[in-house]
Amino acid sequence: MEDIQQGKGLVGLSDGRSLPYDILVFATGASAFIPPIPGIDQTGVFSVKHLSDGLAIKNFLEKEKCRKAVIIGGGFIGMEMCEVLHNRGIDTRVIDLTDRPVMRWEPEFTDLIVDEMARHDVQFMPGTKTQAVEKGKEHRFRLITNEGELDADIIIAAVGIRPATDLAKAMGIETGRNGAIQVNFSQQTSKENVYAVGDCCEVYHRIMKKWVYQPLGDISNKQGRVAGINIGGASMLFPGVIGAQSFKLFDLEVAATGIDTQEAVAAGFKPACTIHWGKASAFPDAPRIGLKLVADRSSGLLLGAQGIGTSGVVGRINVLSTALWAGMHLQDIAYMDLAYSPYYSPPWDPIHFAAQQLMRQMQSSAVGACSIN
Amino acid sequence: MEDIQQGKGLVGLSDGRSLPYDILVFATGASAFIPPIPGIDQTGVFSVKHLSDGLAIKNFLEKEKCRKAVIIGGGFIGMEMCEVLHNRGIDTRVIDLTDRPVMRWEPEFTDLIVDEMARHDVQFMPGTKTQAVEKGKEHRFRLITNEGELDADIIIAAVGIRPATDLAKAMGIETGRNGAIQVNFSQQTSKENVYAVGDCCEVYHRIMKKWVYQPLGDISNKQGRVAGINIGGASMLFPGVIGAQSFKLFDLEVAATGIDTQEAVAAGFKPACTIHWGKASAFPDAPRIGLKLVADRSSGLLLGAQGIGTSGVVGRINVLSTALWAGMHLQDIAYMDLAYSPYYSPPWDPIHFAAQQLMRQMQSSAVGACSIN
Repeated sequence: MEDIQQGKGLVGLSDGRSLPYDILVFATGASAFIPPIPGIDQTGVFSVKHLSDGLAIKNFLEKEKCRKAVIIGGGFIGMEMCEVLHNRGIDTRVIDLTDRPVMRWEPEFTDLIVDEMARHDVQFMPGTKTQAVEKGKEHRFRLITNEGELDADIIIAAVGIRPATDLAKAMGIETGRNGAIQVNFSQQTSKENVYAVGDCCEVYHRIMKKWVYQPLGDISNKQGRVAGINIGGASMLFPGVIGAQSFKLFDLEVAATGIDTQEAVAAGFKPACTIHWGKASAFPDAPRIGLKLVADRSSGLLLGAQGIGTSGVVGRINVLSTALWAGMHLQDIAYMDLAYSPYYSPPWDPIHFAAQQLMRQMQSSAVGACSIN
Repeated sequence: MEDIQQGKGLVGLSDGRSLPYDILVFATGASAFIPPIPGIDQTGVFSVKHLSDGLAIKNFLEKEKCRKAVIIGGGFIGMEMCEVLHNRGIDTRVIDLTDRPVMRWEPEFTDLIVDEMARHDVQFMPGTKTQAVEKGKEHRFRLITNEGELDADIIIAAVGIRPATDLAKAMGIETGRNGAIQVNFSQQTSKENVYAVGDCCEVYHRIMKKWVYQPLGDISNKQGRVAGINIGGASMLFPGVIGAQSFKLFDLEVAATGIDTQEAVAAGFKPACTIHWGKASAFPDAPRIGLKLVADRSSGLLLGAQGIGTSGVVGRINVLSTALWAGMHLQDIAYMDLAYSPYYSPPWDPIHFAAQQLMRQMQSSAVGACSIN
């Protein structure tokens, strides 16, 4: 696609043809951000955004002998990729500028994530900045970092994505502070006959009560359908998101929903939080589940939750997502009826215990296990 | 405990002593119902209600050579017991008066339950009535049934429980139609200083909007704490239940919450329902999950849900339990933000698909896959 001629209602294609439109939908997605590191633009350095990226990585791994991998970026894409590469027998490192992976989660939880990587011989290197990617000798690449030199046969750059909005900006569509296209609840942009959906546009966060950039596949799907319904002549408003997210890392389920204490302060709440370590089943050898709850001291409203464990975590975070969706208070959650069976939880679910613990903490006015910075 | 002398505020114990009380709590639980079958009162026939029953069964299995077991009753206790006995290498049959096990669940789902039993060589015998338990030759017992004779070395009678209310009735405490002690939301009985909690008393069903008998361990725990809080001088109302329940059968997770179509009709709703077969993950070989949703045609309110599958079922039913708890409409559920990751669901969760499917069905006024009898 080369250009859009609004006045004429034409989309110009790169092969010279033009397509007429009455209604235009931007579903341009996002592009992986490639950090400006000398030498990073070489064959064997991949980002993970499009289906074609996945196929290219698969193809490269099949054709080239890869013994060592470096993943730049400890976000959830980095987590998923380190498991995949390790499972193919590749010695894998994850390096990150910050001091821990997946910063959205509580340090107590990210410690377990680093342990889980270590248990599978994946090294996490905090505070590590790549200064250059050079040709190696025994291996294809040598990464020069502030923490020394690292060998790699394949490099994955997973440091985030940016909304793809060049065409939209060129035709004067308004974008938000994060650069994503602004839309209303019908997915219309600042021009009535132009819609935007997916990773190129903003989405309304129901807990923060503001428009945010949260590029996730399930959200894109919903926005696409809402736009389609409205364009098709029916009427539907996109109900927004609450920030539910999960990933798998080897034997760990990791999930979160809603907002954390700092975001809560920024959104005008007075957050209190707690971390509860419970049991995933009623049996003596039950694996542990970690649950962090954040609630508003003024109203008692649940604001967010994080979870980690070997099973039953995503299900529990989705229970709490539903509670957030419905605007439930801690008190509604503390005695809620859940489908108890000894295999799937103790008679009091970790959700109940965590809610009760946070209520007690709020009653006693203690700041609690999680301080607010 | 022999008797309660209300006037004197004394509980008479069986050893002749008396204990004074200001406040009395009935936590007498329930007793397993033993069907009146000739010969059922023999060593080697067990019910499964108290911890001592479990220990007695374990002890019997360790001491006696048990090769064959018959479980009378295909409820969820029967399901759990058949797995335990099979896993100990015992050839196990489940017999039931009705045509399928765990009648709460949809026939499409109970067919899978019967298949799962069969896959583990546990035979389910529908329409089977035990007429007598006789001494056997090669095996300890011979059961005479309308479907022929069955050998057994151990028999489990799991046909339901009855609230244990003799003492309460003797002191004039009011009971409900099902024989359980009537309580208010503070767990007080018809006498102000007498409380009741657990399997001996009723519980308020938030969807049916009436008091029911639903003896389950997690509910008992909650009622006990509510009674304790009120007796201790603070104030708390028990928020009721919605009928959430789950069990495991070999590789199947089975769960349900809320009410089914017939209960909905009885409760004054106009139910519509649907069954959706979805995928538990985004991968091509994802196992299937069956979800049944019931909603009210007049209001769009969710009324109940049932689920079956090899993973992710209890978590999803608890999402729907939370939706029921909060009084959510199908429309709120259809686009709800859940923690998507390819390992744990497709981008549209089976919950979303099921809710959308039922909404379409209700719009088109079709009766849908589930008819209301």
